Amino acid sequence: MTWNVTNNELTEEQLLVNESLFSLGNGFLGVRGNVEEGYGPDMTSIRGTYINAYHDETEIEYGEKLYAFPETQQKLVNIIDSQTVTIDIDGERFSMFSGKILGLERVLHMDRGIQERRVHWRSPKGKEVKLTFRRLVSFTRKELFAQEITIDPSTPAEVHVAASVNGNVSNFVDPNDPRVASGHAERLHVTAQEAGEVLHVTNQTYETKLNVHCASCSLLEGAEADKEVIEEEGKLTETYSFQADGPVVLTRWNAYTDTYRHENRLKEKAEEVLAGRPAFSLLEKEQKEYLDHFWMQANLKVGGDESLQQGIHFNLYHLLQSAGRDAVSNIPAKGLSGEGYEGHYFWDTEIYMFPVFLMTQPEIAKQLLKYRHSLLDAARARAKEVGHSQGALFPWRTITGGECSAYFPAGTAQYHISADISYSFIQYYLVTGDEDFLRDYMLEVLTETSRLWMDMGHEKNGMFRLDDVTGPDEYTCIVNNNYYTNVMAKHSLRWAVKAWQKLPEGDRRVWAEKLDLKESEMKQWEKAAKNMYLPYSNELGIQAQDDTFLNKKVWDLENTPKEKFPLLLHYHPLTLYRYQVCKQADTVLGHFLLEDEADEETMRRSYDYYEKVTTHDSSLSYCVFSMMAARLGRGDKAYRYFIETARLDIDNTHKNTKDGLHLANMGGTWLALVFGFAGMRVKEKGLVFRPVLPKEWDTLSFRIQYQGRLLEVTLNRKEAVYQLLEGKTLHFTHRNESVTVTASRPVKLAI
Amino acid sequence: MTWNVTNNELTEEQLLVNESLFSLGNGFLGVRGNVEEGYGPDMTSIRGTYINAYHDETEIEYGEKLYAFPETQQKLVNIIDSQTVTIDIDGERFSMFSGKILGLERVLHMDRGIQERRVHWRSPKGKEVKLTFRRLVSFTRKELFAQEITIDPSTPAEVHVAASVNGNVSNFVDPNDPRVASGHAERLHVTAQEAGEVLHVTNQTYETKLNVHCASCSLLEGAEADKEVIEEEGKLTETYSFQADGPVVLTRWNAYTDTYRHENRLKEKAEEVLAGRPAFSLLEKEQKEYLDHFWMQANLKVGGDESLQQGIHFNLYHLLQSAGRDAVSNIPAKGLSGEGYEGHYFWDTEIYMFPVFLMTQPEIAKQLLKYRHSLLDAARARAKEVGHSQGALFPWRTITGGECSAYFPAGTAQYHISADISYSFIQYYLVTGDEDFLRDYMLEVLTETSRLWMDMGHEKNGMFRLDDVTGPDEYTCIVNNNYYTNVMAKHSLRWAVKAWQKLPEGDRRVWAEKLDLKESEMKQWEKAAKNMYLPYSNELGIQAQDDTFLNKKVWDLENTPKEKFPLLLHYHPLTLYRYQVCKQADTVLGHFLLEDEADEETMRRSYDYYEKVTTHDSSLSYCVFSMMAARLGRGDKAYRYFIETARLDIDNTHKNTKDGLHLANMGGTWLALVFGFAGMRVKEKGLVFRPVLPKEWDTLSFRIQYQGRLLEVTLNRKEAVYQLLEGKTLHFTHRNESVTVTASRPVKLAI
Repeated sequence: MTWNVTNNELTEEQLLVNESLFSLGNGFLGVRGNVEEGYGPDMTSIRGTYINAYHDETEIEYGEKLYAFPETQQKLVNIIDSQTVTIDIDGERFSMFSGKILGLERVLHMDRGIQERRVHWRSPKGKEVKLTFRRLVSFTRKELFAQEITIDPSTPAEVHVAASVNGNVSNFVDPNDPRVASGHAERLHVTAQEAGEVLHVTNQTYETKLNVHCASCSLLEGAEADKEVIEEEGKLTETYSFQADGPVVLTRWNAYTDTYRHENRLKEKAEEVLAGRPAFSLLEKEQKEYLDHFWMQANLKVGGDESLQQGIHFNLYHLLQSAGRDAVSNIPAKGLSGEGYEGHYFWDTEIYMFPVFLMTQPEIAKQLLKYRHSLLDAARARAKEVGHSQGALFPWRTITGGECSAYFPAGTAQYHISADISYSFIQYYLVTGDEDFLRDYMLEVLTETSRLWMDMGHEKNGMFRLDDVTGPDEYTCIVNNNYYTNVMAKHSLRWAVKAWQKLPEGDRRVWAEKLDLKESEMKQWEKAAKNMYLPYSNELGIQAQDDTFLNKKVWDLENTPKEKFPLLLHYHPLTLYRYQVCKQADTVLGHFLLEDEADEETMRRSYDYYEKVTTHDSSLSYCVFSMMAARLGRGDKAYRYFIETARLDIDNTHKNTKDGLHLANMGGTWLALVFGFAGMRVKEKGLVFRPVLPKEWDTLSFRIQYQGRLLEVTLNRKEAVYQLLEGKTLHFTHRNESVTVTASRPVKLAI
Repeated sequence: MTWNVTNNELTEEQLLVNESLFSLGNGFLGVRGNVEEGYGPDMTSIRGTYINAYHDETEIEYGEKLYAFPETQQKLVNIIDSQTVTIDIDGERFSMFSGKILGLERVLHMDRGIQERRVHWRSPKGKEVKLTFRRLVSFTRKELFAQEITIDPSTPAEVHVAASVNGNVSNFVDPNDPRVASGHAERLHVTAQEAGEVLHVTNQTYETKLNVHCASCSLLEGAEADKEVIEEEGKLTETYSFQADGPVVLTRWNAYTDTYRHENRLKEKAEEVLAGRPAFSLLEKEQKEYLDHFWMQANLKVGGDESLQQGIHFNLYHLLQSAGRDAVSNIPAKGLSGEGYEGHYFWDTEIYMFPVFLMTQPEIAKQLLKYRHSLLDAARARAKEVGHSQGALFPWRTITGGECSAYFPAGTAQYHISADISYSFIQYYLVTGDEDFLRDYMLEVLTETSRLWMDMGHEKNGMFRLDDVTGPDEYTCIVNNNYYTNVMAKHSLRWAVKAWQKLPEGDRRVWAEKLDLKESEMKQWEKAAKNMYLPYSNELGIQAQDDTFLNKKVWDLENTPKEKFPLLLHYHPLTLYRYQVCKQADTVLGHFLLEDEADEETMRRSYDYYEKVTTHDSSLSYCVFSMMAARLGRGDKAYRYFIETARLDIDNTHKNTKDGLHLANMGGTWLALVFGFAGMRVKEKGLVFRPVLPKEWDTLSFRIQYQGRLLEVTLNRKEAVYQLLEGKTLHFTHRNESVTVTASRPVKLAI
């Protein structure tokens, strides 16, 4: 069953993991997979509902605060809870942790966009009842979270149901793990009121003064009930008391609105969403239609491995659930599935997730870029604050543009994020050919980031150098001439020049004035790109991760006890920085993204070298090693790394899925299949494929969008089949061969 | 008047500075130069009394806390206040900020060890009175702070005097400056009781549960008074009401004891100190005797510049007031004159202050080293915690041995402190020839720090490398092969071997077992020292500050606006780290401390190069540049830098003297004169002098202790005169000449 994820365990540990696995979302709203009635006493739950980008600010405390350290940190805020429903049967409260569970099934339906829980329960006093909980966060009505609960006692029973809307919520705090959201456990401002049949609760954040509103209503079918509304401080509860002689169904509609999207119409908009009380079956139908279309465009099929296929579905499904589509939000590192990394947006989006959307849902991809473009003012201000005389320095982690990193060596110092963002804009342009976008968005981003590189870099002995940065590998911080950063900046500078050259003469004058472009700037960019220093070791024949990495002592990974991983939780950063040891792909990632900057033998030797010193303590690592292994013709290795990505969350291999899903890794699964095994690259000259099918699989197929076309690629043991499903004749490259595919006939090529 | 410091200004700014300038101390107890009655309303005062090493602990907050970041920070605590005395004359409260000041003189007597304030005051209603406030912190009775107040109205007056002992104190907080003590503004536990004629107040710190006790009594002479004691929460006040027909004198004795030094006898010991109520004149006499002896041993005389001579006296005097002599305390970066740097001990002691004591007060020097030796267990534990498999890593800043640095790139990363400490032990041995000390203290320190270097360093291409450290220059953090660190570690490793070799065979066996020394270790140390990599630029002919410093962009100091200094308060550390810009001497300091590791031309070129990129934003910088300028025969330059050191605090040139005195810089004054102008070095082969007298001076003379001798050195325009005042015939080097001086006859040599 590759379209479902099922998990029926009732241990505290797995239940926490399930809260993330079974989370629902639509890019705007996210609801964790908590259970309506809660767990047993003393069992931990991270109960959460989130709106993408809806955040508060807290002060950042520093033992020693230096100049331009961020003063405040934004944090995704847990909003009003509308999941909670308690059920009493003949006076006994239903719980999966009392009485006896005679049957239980919890399922996430990834083809249908619903989550379902069926429980056959015998109460402590012996009453039997079948309960079905179904829920969805609508893809088409973004404010709506709906629930359907069926109560079916084996013999007639007196039932009492209480469904609440609770503003008394707070964020979860785990002081022992820096990767988990911290602080902001304070209660929000809460106002509650009852209005006819709709319950209304509004919360406001303390500092950002953002409002969130939840309007909720419900309908009971199958019994005559006494209905009541109980008002408590910040909480409203609807209760139904009735005799159930057969199945009784409660449907709940919970609509969420917030200041960002609905300005002063929070309540009105929420009521509009509830209007007509759309039947749960209708909502299900809409979900199915939406997902049918999505899977038609985005599905990736691997023939011969069901468990893997399930992982692929799961990862793509959660990506879809997590991506903001409104240009004021992006993709939080943990999606909307948990509070880890405080709902911040990182480079994870650009490098690991954006390509999935770009190639399958370009409209969402465009929104993600527009969001980044909207941060430019903040990025310019940040550059100034840090000490630059020009340019834009994008924040390492943020929600609305302010730098939220409290540890700059593995935060602000990761200047590469500015190049990563530029890279995505360039990729978008290459895939869509959208000239308007180039002019209206890309030009400014490339210009301002180029100005940053010019200000922070300098030429010495004919080489343009970028000192004092941290590359992707967070076990090696504050270095000079990180290969990844330099090669990405080079690409960005070169494309900044190109972008201006692509503008029609008239536009160029207008925009040169708008962006205050000096004649001389483009020349400087060109020169800097040309002279960009890319450190190389003659001795090893590899690109050096930075100026001094290869001179350091090599960490003895073989003799490091297993329990000492991830290393960051067991060694002082100084100790980690002192060694050749990588948390994740760094130079190897540079080779993947910009393969034309190094010859194949260098990439091969670099791969071999860095593989030996990489711990993959970051979940952003496996997919890169998988892709580069495939690129270098090492199918076996590619497969082994890939396998680590596909089921990382389903199998909780990193042991922290409870804090939220590893969205970047999920994107990495798609990347590994398409960029890895199918060997796709998007280049200026067009698409390139270099397919490699692991021996474990019979087939691999997927679809991509490219300049108005829909292309299906299918690999089997012998050949690659390219079929144009929509759009005009396409020229591309298969290995080193120029190929043309027309709508009328698929092209089959040996692999 | 070179023996006095006078300042009669009454601006808020200068009064705060005066609190530091006029502070009194004896290495154990420190009392800021506040005024008894306080200032005007709304005027800021940092009112403080401190016991060296008496501290509390507070949690360190981190926005992002990584492994082995210190959890708590120790902070010098402001203890019970016994300075406060208010005086009412005919019902009008005396204040320097009401009525009219007809005369005022505030003087610190550095030859007599007292501070005096004479005020001729006319009250708002026109009453005239002369008041004299005198105070001392006894050098010979370390627990005692005494005050003498003379009240002399021009016509008979009704006077009311209230002298209090107040436990309701807190530390000063300035959230805008990271260099100022922060936090711990909470009140201490306070208990107060009246016991006969002695007032007793005890405070206890919240976390460390250390007690401090103040016992206070007073005597009024010259009038019959009604005496009363008022008890408030945590505060006791003695009042005297009387008619003054002539001068009336109040003497107060305040005795302080604490848990460290007096265990469970705090109250008893304090009462012992008060016993007999020693007359203020007796205490003055004792001070004078003590200081006569000190100045006889330690005074430095410069002929031809009174203002400079005053600065020299001032700096030496405060060094004497600040140095702990009990092996549980050391010299706080601000002495006992303020709360800046939270009373922590840094490398400042070893490199800037220890040599002064070593050469003039070797018994105090020994105590300072014993204190460091006592931290070994903590340093071993810290090494383990950070990730080392062996050795001792001394804390960058501490009171009792725990690392208190909350910003590791300019804290824990300064591994050189472990070499600095070793260096001092070696210097001590060279100056005293104390073999017992070598065996009982030095051996262990050198062994454990050598083990640290072996664990953190590694050999590559035949060179022993020390990666991932920060040198003295805090504008360049987290680098590889910092010259200073490497050359200091080399010296330390080499001496570790020597120290073992100097042990008699029997001792060696015993100690090898005690310290678990393996045969192979000494060989490794020797090899590492021999192969230590000392980065050098062939292009520039200088030692490179680290592997990559010279490749960075050079900061444009010339075009940096004056108000942007110190740079650390105006630029993000990443921006500073990215440039060739130094906060302070780094490589140049390495050349000063270990001149035999580089040839003279290299030192000269290094000096010229680094001088251009150094801001001297740290007060630890001038003296080093002065000494090296003198070493290189540049008397003018040496003089100009020296001048910045001598009056830095008196003239408040760094604008933060209010937070406490710059003790290291004060040591630097002595160093610049003795190591700089007199060109003294302590080497294994003996003392070396290379005198250079600036043209501004007629003479320079000083005395030093060396292997049981007292040697006086006098420079005049033509010659250096070496006179042996105590001890056996001495062989030393004057320039390149071997010289012998005997007790019977001074040696005069041309300079």
